[in-house]
Amino acid sequence: MLGCVVLLLVTLCTQGGNGEDGQTPGHVSVVIVGGTGDLAKKYLWQGFFHLYVNHVSSGNTFSFYGGGLTPADKAKPVFFEILKAVNCPKDVSQERCALLKEQFLRLSEYQQLKTIEEYQDLSKHIEQQLQQEGLSEAGRLFYLSVPAFAYADIAEKINSSCRPTSGAWLRVVLEKPFGHDFRSAQVLASQLGSSLKDEEMYRIDHYLGKQVVAKILPFRIENKKFLDPIWNKHHIERVEIVLKETLDVKGRIPFYDQYGVIRDVMQNHLTEVMTLLTMRLPVNLSSSEEVLQNKLHIFSSILPVGKNQAVIGQYQEYTTQVQQELNKTKDHISITPTFAAVLAHIDEAQFEGVPILLISGKKLDERVGYARIVFKNDIFCLQNHNSIHCKPKQIVFYFGHGSLQYPAILVSKNLFKPVSKDSEWKEVTEHKDVSILGLPISDYYVQIPTEQREAYSELISYIFAGRKDSFISTENLLASWGMWTPLLSSIASSFPRIYPGGADNGDLLNVRLIGKEISYNSEVVIINNDQMGGTSANGFQVMQGKFRGADLVSAWAEELVERLAADLQGAAEKAVLESGVFHLALSGGSTPLALFHRLALHHFSFPWRDTHVWMADERCVPVTEFESNFQNLHDHLLQHVRIPYYNIHPMPVQLNERLCVEEDGGRLLYEKEIRKLVNGSSFHFVLLGVGYDGHTASLFPGSKTDKHGESLVALTESPVKPHQRMSLTFSAINRAHEVALLVMGKGKHELITQLSRVEDNPEKWPVTGVKPSDGRLVWYLDYDALLG
Amino acid sequence: MLGCVVLLLVTLCTQGGNGEDGQTPGHVSVVIVGGTGDLAKKYLWQGFFHLYVNHVSSGNTFSFYGGGLTPADKAKPVFFEILKAVNCPKDVSQERCALLKEQFLRLSEYQQLKTIEEYQDLSKHIEQQLQQEGLSEAGRLFYLSVPAFAYADIAEKINSSCRPTSGAWLRVVLEKPFGHDFRSAQVLASQLGSSLKDEEMYRIDHYLGKQVVAKILPFRIENKKFLDPIWNKHHIERVEIVLKETLDVKGRIPFYDQYGVIRDVMQNHLTEVMTLLTMRLPVNLSSSEEVLQNKLHIFSSILPVGKNQAVIGQYQEYTTQVQQELNKTKDHISITPTFAAVLAHIDEAQFEGVPILLISGKKLDERVGYARIVFKNDIFCLQNHNSIHCKPKQIVFYFGHGSLQYPAILVSKNLFKPVSKDSEWKEVTEHKDVSILGLPISDYYVQIPTEQREAYSELISYIFAGRKDSFISTENLLASWGMWTPLLSSIASSFPRIYPGGADNGDLLNVRLIGKEISYNSEVVIINNDQMGGTSANGFQVMQGKFRGADLVSAWAEELVERLAADLQGAAEKAVLESGVFHLALSGGSTPLALFHRLALHHFSFPWRDTHVWMADERCVPVTEFESNFQNLHDHLLQHVRIPYYNIHPMPVQLNERLCVEEDGGRLLYEKEIRKLVNGSSFHFVLLGVGYDGHTASLFPGSKTDKHGESLVALTESPVKPHQRMSLTFSAINRAHEVALLVMGKGKHELITQLSRVEDNPEKWPVTGVKPSDGRLVWYLDYDALLG
Repeated sequence: MLGCVVLLLVTLCTQGGNGEDGQTPGHVSVVIVGGTGDLAKKYLWQGFFHLYVNHVSSGNTFSFYGGGLTPADKAKPVFFEILKAVNCPKDVSQERCALLKEQFLRLSEYQQLKTIEEYQDLSKHIEQQLQQEGLSEAGRLFYLSVPAFAYADIAEKINSSCRPTSGAWLRVVLEKPFGHDFRSAQVLASQLGSSLKDEEMYRIDHYLGKQVVAKILPFRIENKKFLDPIWNKHHIERVEIVLKETLDVKGRIPFYDQYGVIRDVMQNHLTEVMTLLTMRLPVNLSSSEEVLQNKLHIFSSILPVGKNQAVIGQYQEYTTQVQQELNKTKDHISITPTFAAVLAHIDEAQFEGVPILLISGKKLDERVGYARIVFKNDIFCLQNHNSIHCKPKQIVFYFGHGSLQYPAILVSKNLFKPVSKDSEWKEVTEHKDVSILGLPISDYYVQIPTEQREAYSELISYIFAGRKDSFISTENLLASWGMWTPLLSSIASSFPRIYPGGADNGDLLNVRLIGKEISYNSEVVIINNDQMGGTSANGFQVMQGKFRGADLVSAWAEELVERLAADLQGAAEKAVLESGVFHLALSGGSTPLALFHRLALHHFSFPWRDTHVWMADERCVPVTEFESNFQNLHDHLLQHVRIPYYNIHPMPVQLNERLCVEEDGGRLLYEKEIRKLVNGSSFHFVLLGVGYDGHTASLFPGSKTDKHGESLVALTESPVKPHQRMSLTFSAINRAHEVALLVMGKGKHELITQLSRVEDNPEKWPVTGVKPSDGRLVWYLDYDALLG
Repeated sequence: MLGCVVLLLVTLCTQGGNGEDGQTPGHVSVVIVGGTGDLAKKYLWQGFFHLYVNHVSSGNTFSFYGGGLTPADKAKPVFFEILKAVNCPKDVSQERCALLKEQFLRLSEYQQLKTIEEYQDLSKHIEQQLQQEGLSEAGRLFYLSVPAFAYADIAEKINSSCRPTSGAWLRVVLEKPFGHDFRSAQVLASQLGSSLKDEEMYRIDHYLGKQVVAKILPFRIENKKFLDPIWNKHHIERVEIVLKETLDVKGRIPFYDQYGVIRDVMQNHLTEVMTLLTMRLPVNLSSSEEVLQNKLHIFSSILPVGKNQAVIGQYQEYTTQVQQELNKTKDHISITPTFAAVLAHIDEAQFEGVPILLISGKKLDERVGYARIVFKNDIFCLQNHNSIHCKPKQIVFYFGHGSLQYPAILVSKNLFKPVSKDSEWKEVTEHKDVSILGLPISDYYVQIPTEQREAYSELISYIFAGRKDSFISTENLLASWGMWTPLLSSIASSFPRIYPGGADNGDLLNVRLIGKEISYNSEVVIINNDQMGGTSANGFQVMQGKFRGADLVSAWAEELVERLAADLQGAAEKAVLESGVFHLALSGGSTPLALFHRLALHHFSFPWRDTHVWMADERCVPVTEFESNFQNLHDHLLQHVRIPYYNIHPMPVQLNERLCVEEDGGRLLYEKEIRKLVNGSSFHFVLLGVGYDGHTASLFPGSKTDKHGESLVALTESPVKPHQRMSLTFSAINRAHEVALLVMGKGKHELITQLSRVEDNPEKWPVTGVKPSDGRLVWYLDYDALLG
């Protein structure tokens, strides 16, 4: 028994307060603000007692304070009731346990913490005690177990009147929610930032204290030699991060209805798990800085998550519960989602195209949490399909509950046998006969924690050890909100699919991945209020007609883009069939982006290999700058398709380290290239937009375009910055086989109305100069632009 | 019944001799050379009788000749025995059948066909008959059912003495094998080409006559709207084309041992199926030309298939059978494969990365043939995993046999319900309860031919209709051999895995896909002769040492390349960590290709986004030409990784439509670009090779490299074509942080031996001028180059 205790102490010394951080032992004051609340009662005091038990012999001394708004005389009995209920770790003997509990109670006291004076009193109290007992102060740990709105105020009080003596540390622990979107999180962070240094703040995500979650990075490192060859897009079919709950949120509606499932568990827990699975492995796992830095990096690679990357649902009784708990009438409807499935993609070569599904909901058929990495089936079984080799390959980080009921890491036996160097984890080979995500448990190697520990106890020990990597840094928090806020805004007025709850959900919430988008698999939509449904845009057909004497195609934006993309592919195929090559000139601006996305994500048989891409116009800025039209085109289209390098023709706006200087001859260079490669200098397809002032390409009102004569390329001047431009001329444009003018958005309606009336006058309305001499002109106007 | 016959006639008219080709009806002479052989007996006369039955009322008249080497008196009885055994199609009444058979026998005769005179006699005979009966000749159809070595001779005889009268067609039908590799196929094709026009040759692949195979293209067209969105890399997980046989080749060894499974069924049948599944759909399915053109196109996109894309096997008894049938002693071993699994990839955006498995073998556990398109699992099932939505999605073209026993097209119900506009196919909903490739048959929509027809009958009707798209054109044949010949050469001395045969094969022949490579899944290798196994290259470790005072890394070629790739990635990561960017200069030539492949296929986390690629040297040829170093680099590396456009820096060898003219300033342009972007003009990594004459980059012996002075880029002259070059200078190279000199192959051993002795003398041995002033030089020499 003694040997065991010694071992425990050794382990703790490397983790503990006098461990890696080189903290010198001394007196530690722990203050739980909200010390008689639910969380404190259920987890926190228990966690701090364990901390005390583990560190009582480490050279540190402790005092514990429960703080709260309630006056001491009222709160004290409750407080001590809570404290008396704490349990010792299993390996502590009964006698020692009794002794430790007695000590713990003696070291604890309740303190009302409401006014600034009360915080000052607390500080004085601590200092007196230090003096009386001749102790040096190691640090003060404040655990704010209070509603988030109180954080800034309490932080300020701590800062102004309760900081530890010089040389000792201050750690302030905060619980989510940390804001409800990017902006509010930023405000809160900056408020806290005015009172506390970043390193003093410990934002808790209790998922990071779950043993399986905390093991993800060590597991990846320990099994690096097995994982390195398969931890990439070539082997991973998809990643699923799932948190299913059976309970509803009855009784918590006032909070929940403001947040919903995405803010409640996705922005934090599931996102954290995703980063742990996909981040680059730190060279040094014990470097919090490196871990946090690598984690932060992955956020910058997450592709934007928008409306098409999410589906939302709401359990049927939710609305009634809202009406009851918020005292609303029967016609009040909440659209807060209680279920969501979100599809994320990471724009790194390693994970390019790997779907990452984040799924969570209330009132589902079972309670379970896991992250599952499904590998592609890379085996062809010639016979005997029941062989283990022919079964699915997967790694499951099983957080708990479900059919297994305990946390575990499962690696299907057809992958590899994970190493187990970590004494805190053990392999188990005997277990009840259950099936875990499609495989009987006997088909897995199973590792479980040697001893199951509560997430809060774990996190409290990390806080004491100053291990910041298990907490949410300000940067990390804002990056995560940066990922989720656009989605939250875009679904803010979306109506969730209503589901009955429990097993009755059946196939209703199954989702389907289509390219980079997600949707419910079944078309059945239950709308419980007819007035909520608007007329679907899909109800409208594409319309054809005439505009300014040329062909007109009009539709809602989405269909219009689909149609234009299809027409473009048609033109490309025709040109390649006829002449082996397709010359396409594209213009800048934001309007074509939707077209680029459509082409990149849906037109897999577009003959890119035989397509040459030219620019209709360019801003005179370095090609690598954000404003460059080419940069835009590159990032949204070229980077995503397989087009040969030499088929790409950016305009040479930068020569001799100068931008668009006539003597550098960039204009002529481009013209020569066109004449050399494009038969008759006639592009097969020119895509143009129209500016609010009627400009097209970079041909602006008021400029004498006749002076360009037969030149194909001109340097022009824009009324807005950057002023200098390079542009195809009307001579070049009007030689094209086909010109498409794409105009979208309500903002263009006024312009389109005017254009429908004016005569050709390219000096005033440059776009009216677009008149292909032997080719075809088609206006693609969305209904917003056409009808306003 | 009458209606049915009329319908039949109508159908035939559009397909038949007076259909699309505008052939006028007339007399048709059919000659089966080898008319009493096995194939003729089993299939051909039956097929021609059906042709006769179907066309007897079409306005054509017929005569049929069985030709052979046997004298007529001996052959005739056999010949008429065969003819008497033919059957009518099911829908012909007994009386009519008897009548038709009698007519058919009357129209048929045996003719010895050995000498040129006998061919002349046949021709005379036909002409006399035409004259006597006042018939105009429609055409002559020769079916060469003889060994391939006789083709050229017979074709010449037909050409010189048996051509039809002017205006009538000649069709000569040939059976595989058409050569045993590219070269022999080309010789045969050119021999035949001297006697027959391409359009006169009908090379049969009887797989193309199988109803399911012939239905692949029509099916793809009929279901275009369902298939278009999913018939691509984003949805297809993999394609399997499988032909499993239970029989061995006993009795056929003299033929088979020369061919093996790849030549026997893969180069032809399975390859044809692959092209039908992946080729671009013809706009006009009835245009043979377009179909053949599109089919041909796909061959040019098949990535090279080499040793790493195939595994081979041989059933255990094969060697004994060879010894018996070829009269060999007990120590004779054949390495002809009787099983092969081959992994093909198509380098088109649509199918990029989709594994296509071609698998066939003798003595396997069951007889079955199918092509299966497995789709990715794009559904997430929240519960209820037995729902049809959660099951595998696949389309199976089932050629026959196996558990189903009849040909069918199966589409899993979670995909779509195929349209059935084709009266020759019907949907069946009632069938025995079997499981087809992992799904119960009730989970499929099942289409089967209304009437099962023999492949040969089908093909004979196509020949008569002049439908060339169901036959192998010369171009197609050569393209297919072009695909297979490199693999056949590379495995020519490989020892196949020995398998016991039948169900005993167990997991032994299961294969595993690793990236773009394939291997047996289990490591167990049964070698039945110890002397066959050489020492594996993998047994050697990478060796480190010194060479010419610099660091040396040496290993067998494969490990060397792996090591260099790893070192390169290490350097890249370090540079990106330190300075945010990695500047890499690469040289041309064939040596680095293996490195490029390694980087593209295995280094998924290489920081390409932050890497700039520069050229160490370039040939003064247009960048789009085959000889260009950049083209090489582009096709083998850049095209396969995600590197931004502006990080790619080809040398500007072509300016003002001239190549490497000093006044055009390309040299200075490149130098400026380096000075602007590369800190201190010091590349992080320069990869160089060494030529047989000791040149490196494009710095050749005998040139005064000192005159380059501080210039970074120079125009140089090569002793071999193309003479003009652009190259980094020693000034540029020696500023690098790291220079790697990669030298591989026995051919370089002599050079390396010399280099190990000579003093630094850059004028004589340019590579000795590589001496990084502040950087590190590492020689990467493979054992062949180092040890000879």
